[in-house]
Amino acid sequence: MSVLIVGSTALDSIKTPRAEHPRLLGGSASYAAIAASFFAPVRMIGVVGEDFPKKYLQLYRKHGIHLDGLQIKPGKTFHWSGEYEANMNRRRTLKTELGVFETFAPALPAAYRATPFVLLANIAPALQHHVLDQTRRPKFVAADTMDLWLNIALPDLRRLLRRVDLFVLNDSESAQLTREDNVIAALPRLHRLGPRYVIIKLGSHGSILSGPRGLFLCPAYPLPRVADPTGAGDAFVGGLMGYLAAGGGGIEARLRRALIYGSVTASFCCEGPGPSRLTRITRADLERRVKALTQLTRF
Amino acid sequence: MSVLIVGSTALDSIKTPRAEHPRLLGGSASYAAIAASFFAPVRMIGVVGEDFPKKYLQLYRKHGIHLDGLQIKPGKTFHWSGEYEANMNRRRTLKTELGVFETFAPALPAAYRATPFVLLANIAPALQHHVLDQTRRPKFVAADTMDLWLNIALPDLRRLLRRVDLFVLNDSESAQLTREDNVIAALPRLHRLGPRYVIIKLGSHGSILSGPRGLFLCPAYPLPRVADPTGAGDAFVGGLMGYLAAGGGGIEARLRRALIYGSVTASFCCEGPGPSRLTRITRADLERRVKALTQLTRF
Repeated sequence: MSVLIVGSTALDSIKTPRAEHPRLLGGSASYAAIAASFFAPVRMIGVVGEDFPKKYLQLYRKHGIHLDGLQIKPGKTFHWSGEYEANMNRRRTLKTELGVFETFAPALPAAYRATPFVLLANIAPALQHHVLDQTRRPKFVAADTMDLWLNIALPDLRRLLRRVDLFVLNDSESAQLTREDNVIAALPRLHRLGPRYVIIKLGSHGSILSGPRGLFLCPAYPLPRVADPTGAGDAFVGGLMGYLAAGGGGIEARLRRALIYGSVTASFCCEGPGPSRLTRITRADLERRVKALTQLTRF
Repeated sequence: MSVLIVGSTALDSIKTPRAEHPRLLGGSASYAAIAASFFAPVRMIGVVGEDFPKKYLQLYRKHGIHLDGLQIKPGKTFHWSGEYEANMNRRRTLKTELGVFETFAPALPAAYRATPFVLLANIAPALQHHVLDQTRRPKFVAADTMDLWLNIALPDLRRLLRRVDLFVLNDSESAQLTREDNVIAALPRLHRLGPRYVIIKLGSHGSILSGPRGLFLCPAYPLPRVADPTGAGDAFVGGLMGYLAAGGGGIEARLRRALIYGSVTASFCCEGPGPSRLTRITRADLERRVKALTQLTRF
């Protein structure tokens, strides 16, 4: 089954303590779509400007990503610049130029409306609503977010949480939203906002899934060097949704392994600037790392 | 088989955002010995003053801890006061009164010299050496430490690392010792200092074991409330060494499960002020939590 993904499509200029990378392919939808493409057909919704490099369109196509929902508008592509600190756990935004994103009105091609799996990757909650409004009875809807929307669009986000099956956020966003630092104590509060499933991402410490069958502690694949963590969270949820969409049977039965596949997909994402490493791997590379992670955690 | 444990034996006065607890039983040897006692006979080496409450001696005895190596000296017991921040991940020392610890010269009863498992819990590296000098061909030696010794006794600690099988430290100590923030990249550097096995503790995120058979990612048991994390690291390594000592067969075959048992022992430690919760559980409670942790991590 297919995954519909809406999110940002951008150019990212990234500084790390080791290097500077101008105008990489960026955006939550780009990372999530590439990650999901290893498992299932992907339909991407987004907008880019006329300056968007052809090579990035080719890259989407190389991954078999359907682009009928990608608008190319007069003007400039959304451009984000950021800088990472030495330990890669903190970053600061240097510049955000919205460009064509400022007036983005996502429109679903008719053929996309009944897509069974919907990933509302990180983007303004109003746009996430707008996409969800155009879908027809999806089987499973996941939403990601970021601190910015907690700060400036909280009512929209709260309303969204009553419409999704899975909500994905990181530990600091969880603390901000629930006013509870302990992630285990925060989980019931997050469920009370609506979603049946909640995943709290813990960066290099993995993630925690909470759902009707209790908790699952999902490990991160251990990396001796993180080149650039940009997009890792998007790749995680993209890989997860791709894996879920690819399989038959119930969600519940596949969800834990879906987190594991999301986790290893995200690990590759961290190993190169932007999505450069992620776009060079194969499904077999992912399988090898899932097998390795199994070995690393068995007791 | 028995475990010999040397470390501090103290009174702890602990402030948390919720409560204040004066003169609890404290010290790395106390926590480690109680934790190990669920699995194997424990021989404790330490020193207390004449002010040391009788009820704490009774508590050691209740856990079957052999006290022939516990000196009771004229003067005051080592007293530590500390305060935890709201999220419990940081603490600051308010007062340290060494008391009888200032002149502590650990002496091994003759019957203890050939104890097969030796845990050098957190204490000055010179004292750890001094105990190790008195042992006879132990089967397995583990050492724990703290940032203080990295700051004021680094040459002693480095010399110790060439004499131990397992070195246990936390992520910030690892970063300080290796000048490498990434724990996975730090591990080879730590092995180069001597120990065949290294464990880096990650607090509520679990721990990582590195050894000849590669890495093991050990989860922490998820707790919705941490009453007091004091001694959790000591309980972890105590439980680990107790479990190792209890079993037949090789170290390598039992080590992963030993970390799991250490981890759940530490989780109980966090659930009450000082060792109050740890001293009220049974082996069956530990087994239940190991089973639960297995469920929480299976995929």
